[in-house]
Amino acid sequence: MNDRVYGGIEMGGTKVVCAIGDAPNNLLKTQFPTTNPDETIGKIIDFFKSYPHLTQLAAIGIASFGPLDLDKCSPTYGYITSTPKNAWSNINIVQMIRSRLNVPVAIDTDVNGAGLGEQIWGAARDLDTFIYLTVGTGIGGGGMVNGGLMHGLLHPEMGHIRLPHDWQKDPYSGCCPFHGDCLEGLASGKAMEFRWGQSPEKLPIEHPAWELEANYLALAINNLICTMSPQRIIVGGGLIKNPGLIPAVRRKVEFNLNGYIHSEAITKNIDRYIVAPALGDLAGVIGALELAKRN
Amino acid sequence: MNDRVYGGIEMGGTKVVCAIGDAPNNLLKTQFPTTNPDETIGKIIDFFKSYPHLTQLAAIGIASFGPLDLDKCSPTYGYITSTPKNAWSNINIVQMIRSRLNVPVAIDTDVNGAGLGEQIWGAARDLDTFIYLTVGTGIGGGGMVNGGLMHGLLHPEMGHIRLPHDWQKDPYSGCCPFHGDCLEGLASGKAMEFRWGQSPEKLPIEHPAWELEANYLALAINNLICTMSPQRIIVGGGLIKNPGLIPAVRRKVEFNLNGYIHSEAITKNIDRYIVAPALGDLAGVIGALELAKRN
Repeated sequence: MNDRVYGGIEMGGTKVVCAIGDAPNNLLKTQFPTTNPDETIGKIIDFFKSYPHLTQLAAIGIASFGPLDLDKCSPTYGYITSTPKNAWSNINIVQMIRSRLNVPVAIDTDVNGAGLGEQIWGAARDLDTFIYLTVGTGIGGGGMVNGGLMHGLLHPEMGHIRLPHDWQKDPYSGCCPFHGDCLEGLASGKAMEFRWGQSPEKLPIEHPAWELEANYLALAINNLICTMSPQRIIVGGGLIKNPGLIPAVRRKVEFNLNGYIHSEAITKNIDRYIVAPALGDLAGVIGALELAKRN
Repeated sequence: MNDRVYGGIEMGGTKVVCAIGDAPNNLLKTQFPTTNPDETIGKIIDFFKSYPHLTQLAAIGIASFGPLDLDKCSPTYGYITSTPKNAWSNINIVQMIRSRLNVPVAIDTDVNGAGLGEQIWGAARDLDTFIYLTVGTGIGGGGMVNGGLMHGLLHPEMGHIRLPHDWQKDPYSGCCPFHGDCLEGLASGKAMEFRWGQSPEKLPIEHPAWELEANYLALAINNLICTMSPQRIIVGGGLIKNPGLIPAVRRKVEFNLNGYIHSEAITKNIDRYIVAPALGDLAGVIGALELAKRN
């Protein structure tokens, strides 16, 4: 048996999940709210230092909200860059953790991390091209193409695509500070809260908010399918806790595509094409562990 | 010297280009209009059979309009499937050429082919993640992610993404038979012709058609950047013959992104980020030759 263990950190906008282990069924885990960087990183360090076999910790992986600088040649590699969460702008999170725990640290976006977790252990096993979309307080997307995590120039920012916006049906102007009515501006949990005056988990499932939400997500997924031709789309995040949302999105995606994409994966098996994460809320932190293993 | 030569076929919606050779500066080339399948494929066969050293022809590559079935395990692999060009639906183009020339035949989309040509010889050298977008009679996109051509489930159909459509400024309902006002429905050459009552090459460069065209292309490119994070976007096709179009698109993409993507490739060097094909109109057929080499 391999004595090496790995650490994973899912840095979310509202909460942090830390874990030590090597598989979904073998995890030591904790979570706490994301506050300011000093306090939050202090708690992360405390968790790992409290592990009784700390010397066996081979590496740590971070799956973080962004934007991140993932260019290893950049002087700001490993930084959270220009996030709207002001206290977290220009934070060198990789260095802060590496220097205090003295282990190699890998980093990627929260959604690439969750996608990696799903590819190894969950809903994307045996796939080489898929999307992991998260729909929560914000909206983001990542995943793999041709078997590699999506990076390219930096990393995807799928929450910021522009969509048809029928101002008569939905006069809300959107909450994205950069783009107004981009996908995140119209369909994030934050947008739902601004538009309807209450947090999405308090909106009953028959509220028209959810029909509108499904419309926007289905337009977005239509665009993702046409752009990347993924083999599957995994939709995670807080808003999918409404059990009617993903089924409604599937029907609307079929309507939007209108038979144009001739694949039975979509035309006959859309229930297996647009799916919730098999790892549920653990996808991110398990993906972070996998990032550590690959370091 | 290697005596093996390769054949390339760019199957376009309006014309076919055939070439024999091994590099952009070493090509024997012909072109003719795309008519019905029998006549068109007959001309393709005649061209290759007229080559005096036919026995040296090692393989042929086809970069074709689609949709195509590119799944090698599918019974309809190598077919053009449900194209709006009716006579070409369900045509087994790979088999028709392979059986009559008796050489291996590779196939990919026109845009993946052109992207491959640009990656080997043109504007995408040294890149592993980029998009080749063509804006002509129709609109399509392909390219590479992580060093491999984009396939996934089938192949991208980037012309069919949905965009904001301001019906007051542009009451035209779009010409896509599947989706109405998708990108292709609003911004293809065919859409311009329907909207303005004359073919785009006859519209003077100061005509408001071009401002509207640049708006739609810039929204589309905004979405492609946010979805895939490409290292470069190459824009080919007939409409870019208007010399003001790509520069106008660059300015509007910067406006749309509004500083959100922190990369100097975009914020400082957009003139090298959104570019015309270095191989010009030869990108497709040269890419087809490269497909043959990789067969």
